[in-house]
Amino acid sequence: MIGKLNHVAIAVPDLAAATALYRDTLGAKVSAPVPQPAHGVTVVFVELPNTKVELLHPMGEKSPIAGFLEKNPSGGIHHICYEVEDILAARDKLKATGARVLGDGEPKIGAHDKPVLFLHPKDFNGTLVELEQA
Amino acid sequence: MIGKLNHVAIAVPDLAAATALYRDTLGAKVSAPVPQPAHGVTVVFVELPNTKVELLHPMGEKSPIAGFLEKNPSGGIHHICYEVEDILAARDKLKATGARVLGDGEPKIGAHDKPVLFLHPKDFNGTLVELEQA
Repeated sequence: MIGKLNHVAIAVPDLAAATALYRDTLGAKVSAPVPQPAHGVTVVFVELPNTKVELLHPMGEKSPIAGFLEKNPSGGIHHICYEVEDILAARDKLKATGARVLGDGEPKIGAHDKPVLFLHPKDFNGTLVELEQA
Repeated sequence: MIGKLNHVAIAVPDLAAATALYRDTLGAKVSAPVPQPAHGVTVVFVELPNTKVELLHPMGEKSPIAGFLEKNPSGGIHHICYEVEDILAARDKLKATGARVLGDGEPKIGAHDKPVLFLHPKDFNGTLVELEQA
């Protein structure tokens, strides 16, 4: 069912510093910061040859990563995203096995303008998993 | 400097359950468990089209992931591994910027029989980073 690893998302307390770290110290190709007000984050995309790392920084008062950064002030890996061909089929298969889909269970339009769902970390080895319809 | 994302490593409290989750629930291709006594872990490789997820379970009394699982009993993402062409050049560049290399700073032979280094999470947004010479 799952296909490619679409991205690894890292929440960071200082986006400029994290961008410089990946660009200058690690020598990777990084994007300009992309504000995503609908998702409560500003994102810098780190382009690797086979996948992406996304550096996430809170935007606005209700950012979904604000609580994570309070608990992890240095930052940390927030979630990993796997691609699926059919997100509704994936959701129905997961729910049938007892896995919990976060929110109301309906796919939302994610940061890449594609339908996404998040799965409960307790059901996936303490890992917040995003599924994105490729 | 960094190239491909070689793998994302997830520490898991129950390797059989985590393997079944990735194989049956998420529908991914998984390996048999691979004991790696020199590294204090048993690993199941989850093969994705563009990279790997490695499910790590403690092996032996001095496993490097035992403490992590004590703090995170459900499991969690333990580290991410980036490929580099020349690990000594990478190390010297990183040290020149003040980034801390764990251990004695000399590359060790990692789980894929290639030289690896680990970088201090405090210097990399709370993320334990492994570098592997590709």
